Amino acid sequence: MADIKHNTTSSNTPSITVYWLNESRADRIIFLLEELELPYVIEKFERGPDKLAPEELKNIHPLGKSPVIKDGDRVVAESGFIIDYLINKYGTNKNLKPTDEDDLFQYNYFLHYIEGSLMPILVTKYIFLLLQKQAPWIIKPVVNGICSKMDGLFIGPNIRTHLNFIEGELTKRKWLAGEQFSGADIQASFALEMLLKRSGVKEEEVPNLTRYITAMRERSAYKRAMEKVGKTSMTS
Amino acid sequence: MADIKHNTTSSNTPSITVYWLNESRADRIIFLLEELELPYVIEKFERGPDKLAPEELKNIHPLGKSPVIKDGDRVVAESGFIIDYLINKYGTNKNLKPTDEDDLFQYNYFLHYIEGSLMPILVTKYIFLLLQKQAPWIIKPVVNGICSKMDGLFIGPNIRTHLNFIEGELTKRKWLAGEQFSGADIQASFALEMLLKRSGVKEEEVPNLTRYITAMRERSAYKRAMEKVGKTSMTS
Repeated sequence: MADIKHNTTSSNTPSITVYWLNESRADRIIFLLEELELPYVIEKFERGPDKLAPEELKNIHPLGKSPVIKDGDRVVAESGFIIDYLINKYGTNKNLKPTDEDDLFQYNYFLHYIEGSLMPILVTKYIFLLLQKQAPWIIKPVVNGICSKMDGLFIGPNIRTHLNFIEGELTKRKWLAGEQFSGADIQASFALEMLLKRSGVKEEEVPNLTRYITAMRERSAYKRAMEKVGKTSMTS
Repeated sequence: MADIKHNTTSSNTPSITVYWLNESRADRIIFLLEELELPYVIEKFERGPDKLAPEELKNIHPLGKSPVIKDGDRVVAESGFIIDYLINKYGTNKNLKPTDEDDLFQYNYFLHYIEGSLMPILVTKYIFLLLQKQAPWIIKPVVNGICSKMDGLFIGPNIRTHLNFIEGELTKRKWLAGEQFSGADIQASFALEMLLKRSGVKEEEVPNLTRYITAMRERSAYKRAMEKVGKTSMTS
């Protein structure tokens, strides 16, 4: 439902703009808006050759990061918060937030867990990969040595711990917050695809995570979102 | 109110255990419990010489991280979630969660922002400091070179952006979520002390953040919490 401009909006018609950045967590928000079947506009930003977000994003929110949305006059940042905010405001009949107490507990936990615990270790892995890739050849062996040591001692085992944790959670429930797909799964989508990719573990070893990612990619909202941003999956 | 054991608990008496780890985000939870004036028990864990959390923490929660609490049979992890969970359940007459719509928006935003955006960059800074410190002398110049480059290009400017953002927010409001102290400030406490310390910026340059940290440290719950964990401040 993207790219529909609303010049005249009533208080019941949301006026949502997503400031989207390539290779960022912004894909999740497009996925959510497609699940919610809301009208929205995408403003696209591209990373520079240094992989950093362009300075213009700071005109939207002082941190200059994406995702960030505007809903009327409200600027909303932080994936977990944007997801919960949009579901609370516009998702009342979409079942994306559990009402059962235990499921709601998981929903809230996973909204925090993904950015609070999982993404930081995946980003650390990414920074070390980037360091290795960009090191001049003369110091490459030293940089590789440092990165391998960090990976062996800290990053690798940590990623494995997260993978086992998620695989364990997904043996208990179909989706992260219960038998129903929810906002917690949207928050997790991009991160769990990346977790599996970066772990180097084969899909057969984590059948529940694999089943979960496959089911996520099969959702029509996911497919529509990927079409909007010109991809086949959130990590491609 | 720590270290009060409850062998017999009624459904109205919380039975809370905090699994506390030195040099971790767990101090925040002690701070919150002192604000809420709830009974609780602390189980203390110590980091190994490698600075990692001990394996035994995995017996409490599969990720083996701290803070993690047990409330009755419920195991609750992730700082932002623990804070919101405890306030919702036991803080109804403590005013730690705003009721005003705008203030509640800020409260929820900052619960996510601290771990989603601020802590990852502070942890990255810490990892690079550790790398420099632990590098064998023969490769120290190379490691220092890489770390300085990362700091100059990415980490330093990013920390400065966060510092400016927070200083700006604290010119608008006394506390992060309005004129009242809230759970968002507890979530921020340790992180903002660290932000100021790691930025290398003098207190005079950020008068609002300095005023804020001073006011936080003057709270009697903060002081009681630091006594419980044997410190004078969350970053000492």
